[in-house]
Amino acid sequence: MKIPERILKTLPAAMFVCAGLATVAVLALLFDIREKKREAKRYPFKVVEIPAGETNPVIWGKNFAFEYDSYRKTEINYGRTKYGGSEPYSRLERDPVLKKLYAGYPFSVDYNEERGHHYAEIDQKRTERVKIVKQPGACLNCHTAQAPAMIQTLGWEAFNRGPFDSLSAMARSGVSCSDCHDPETMDLVVTRPAFRNAMTESGVDLAHATRQDMRSYVCGQCHVEYYFKGENKVLTFPWSRGRNIDSIEAHYAAYGFKDWIHKESGASLIKLQHPEFEMWGTGIHAKAGVSCADCHMPYVRQGSVKVSDHWVRSPLKHLESCRQCHPVTEKELEERVLSIQDKTAELLRRTEAALSDAIDAIASAGPRGASDAELEKARGLHRAAQLRWDFVSSENSTGFHSPQEAARILAVSVDLARRAQLKAATYKK
Amino acid sequence: MKIPERILKTLPAAMFVCAGLATVAVLALLFDIREKKREAKRYPFKVVEIPAGETNPVIWGKNFAFEYDSYRKTEINYGRTKYGGSEPYSRLERDPVLKKLYAGYPFSVDYNEERGHHYAEIDQKRTERVKIVKQPGACLNCHTAQAPAMIQTLGWEAFNRGPFDSLSAMARSGVSCSDCHDPETMDLVVTRPAFRNAMTESGVDLAHATRQDMRSYVCGQCHVEYYFKGENKVLTFPWSRGRNIDSIEAHYAAYGFKDWIHKESGASLIKLQHPEFEMWGTGIHAKAGVSCADCHMPYVRQGSVKVSDHWVRSPLKHLESCRQCHPVTEKELEERVLSIQDKTAELLRRTEAALSDAIDAIASAGPRGASDAELEKARGLHRAAQLRWDFVSSENSTGFHSPQEAARILAVSVDLARRAQLKAATYKK
Repeated sequence: MKIPERILKTLPAAMFVCAGLATVAVLALLFDIREKKREAKRYPFKVVEIPAGETNPVIWGKNFAFEYDSYRKTEINYGRTKYGGSEPYSRLERDPVLKKLYAGYPFSVDYNEERGHHYAEIDQKRTERVKIVKQPGACLNCHTAQAPAMIQTLGWEAFNRGPFDSLSAMARSGVSCSDCHDPETMDLVVTRPAFRNAMTESGVDLAHATRQDMRSYVCGQCHVEYYFKGENKVLTFPWSRGRNIDSIEAHYAAYGFKDWIHKESGASLIKLQHPEFEMWGTGIHAKAGVSCADCHMPYVRQGSVKVSDHWVRSPLKHLESCRQCHPVTEKELEERVLSIQDKTAELLRRTEAALSDAIDAIASAGPRGASDAELEKARGLHRAAQLRWDFVSSENSTGFHSPQEAARILAVSVDLARRAQLKAATYKK
Repeated sequence: MKIPERILKTLPAAMFVCAGLATVAVLALLFDIREKKREAKRYPFKVVEIPAGETNPVIWGKNFAFEYDSYRKTEINYGRTKYGGSEPYSRLERDPVLKKLYAGYPFSVDYNEERGHHYAEIDQKRTERVKIVKQPGACLNCHTAQAPAMIQTLGWEAFNRGPFDSLSAMARSGVSCSDCHDPETMDLVVTRPAFRNAMTESGVDLAHATRQDMRSYVCGQCHVEYYFKGENKVLTFPWSRGRNIDSIEAHYAAYGFKDWIHKESGASLIKLQHPEFEMWGTGIHAKAGVSCADCHMPYVRQGSVKVSDHWVRSPLKHLESCRQCHPVTEKELEERVLSIQDKTAELLRRTEAALSDAIDAIASAGPRGASDAELEKARGLHRAAQLRWDFVSSENSTGFHSPQEAARILAVSVDLARRAQLKAATYKK
């Protein structure tokens, strides 16, 4: 094919124009990349020096604007999920049998679904529980950002022992930036002695923790089972033998601990708190190296900056968290989570019925003439059963953090509760 | 820098040699690729025409050599896994309580861990169970490759009804190629009427099954729960209401079915078979689209050909199966599997203890003067409890196929067993 002379003549000019345009495009791209890099470098903004011990999130927010903006959303009521959420509805109204299971303990009077981090201090001061029974300062370990300063001023034991009513006046805010971060480097840090003590006791050297470890450890400072040890009510985690429920039971047995005597059965019971860290630790996500923050504080893009979403909440309300690893639709993910939670909830209700029957049987065995010595075995079974049920019931994932383990615990619990009932029902034979 | 004249002179020759070498290398590579493609194309070897209905694996093996070679290994005793394997040890000796739970039924006399596919027909003819109680031909549906021909000759109902003893003489081999494959196309096919009937009843059109569906469906022809329906003992799957244990229980309740009357408790019980297909269907692997074959018959490379490993066995004996999706060490994978199985086994033992206690309580309630009408409720609870325990106990994964569901089922079972015991123990009050 012969190219016409006319076109051949224009060729050098056309090539020159094309090369010029390409050069401009590449330069524009480079400029854009440089801008994005600059933008990212500007963050965090170094607007103020954050003093060591600064607990006011507003000050931190000047430097860490994106994190602060999302943190403030913990004030929002985003509503209910099927079994959780941020609405402080009464769990005693949702599940009236809880009043019976907690009979004689403040949780039978006031027990609400918890709200966001913003309310950690507000709701703790408001609950009827602290009015019914005088609480120690130990409660404040996790309910206020001012705790580390108070511990420094008063000393560890005096802080824990000191009455809640007077110490709580010093608490000015709930969960804050300083609970988990170094103000200078933004590094994650463990700020609470109880967690450090328990990990040291377990042989874990926090100095060797990886960044990914820390993304769970900072949460594990508070989202755990605990008790107030000795005269000084020192906040302690029952992890000396391990962190699953059987090890926790063994720890409490060795220490001879009880929270209260059940009003109807007379059993020495333990109220479990919120053992999320322990339950997660037995599950597949922990095994796969997935931290609390990966799901509850997923990385999000803010302009050209990647930040952790500090609106800590149920991943059911932001299922894109799961999609970092699980490439399926949000609908499918929600179905998977709810399928796990539905099965756990079914077993919780079944176990509650068994515990209720056990309580009735033990309560009526006394009037039928059973001696306390005779009832002791039934009460021991009640204690072992309720401890396990409460571990799953009080844990904030309705079994999701470790589906098989939660079901296993409830299977053991329902067996023990029925055996408590059997012991009591077959006295006097 | 000035390049010496001498070197400049040799440059064209050097470039020519280099270009020549490069050309040779590329040609060699292309030749190798073409050879590999040819090799792959030669497979399967079209050595013989495999007639429709051919059940002899030796004939199939002439065309499908790699599959046949691995299939033959189902004859090998690869030993035990922690809870399974190919060694036909006595489950009654491992777990003596099973004799009591199956009292009055042939499984209390002879119940061994099963061997490989090769032994499906051999071991069925050998078991004491077929000698103690005369069995129908229906047993042969899954224990011999000759079943489809026998069904064609005798008719569906006569085959199922006809006595096992006489029909079994026609059975010449265990599981064979023709059970799952079309001899012409090697396509997976459903060859057994009971599975086709049950899926049609469930509204599943097998004509629309994907290849991945078929990689589980062919297994589901036999690895299921079943019963012999009506006078003709027609092999039937209890799936009219769904395939989980609660739906299966409802199906049996509507049909008014029992396998036997328990020798000690007098309860009408059902012996569950091997509901792998149903249990897998409730688990996360099924939800993620993972088929039976993906784990039990993983793709392996034979020279340049990719074939399914027909040495169907426990993935604990070839953990590389798991590593297709889970990029962790085999040690870690084994620990994950055993952790699930250990928890399931713990709950199985716990439930067996409860069932044993329930049987004792019911058996002794009669002599204590309880009427049959009084005992009926306790027997009903025994039936519901044992059905669930057996679903997990007889299923061949010790909970692995659906860890939470297996634990949930055992939690319900242990509750029902204890309630059976309570009913019986508190009669005469």
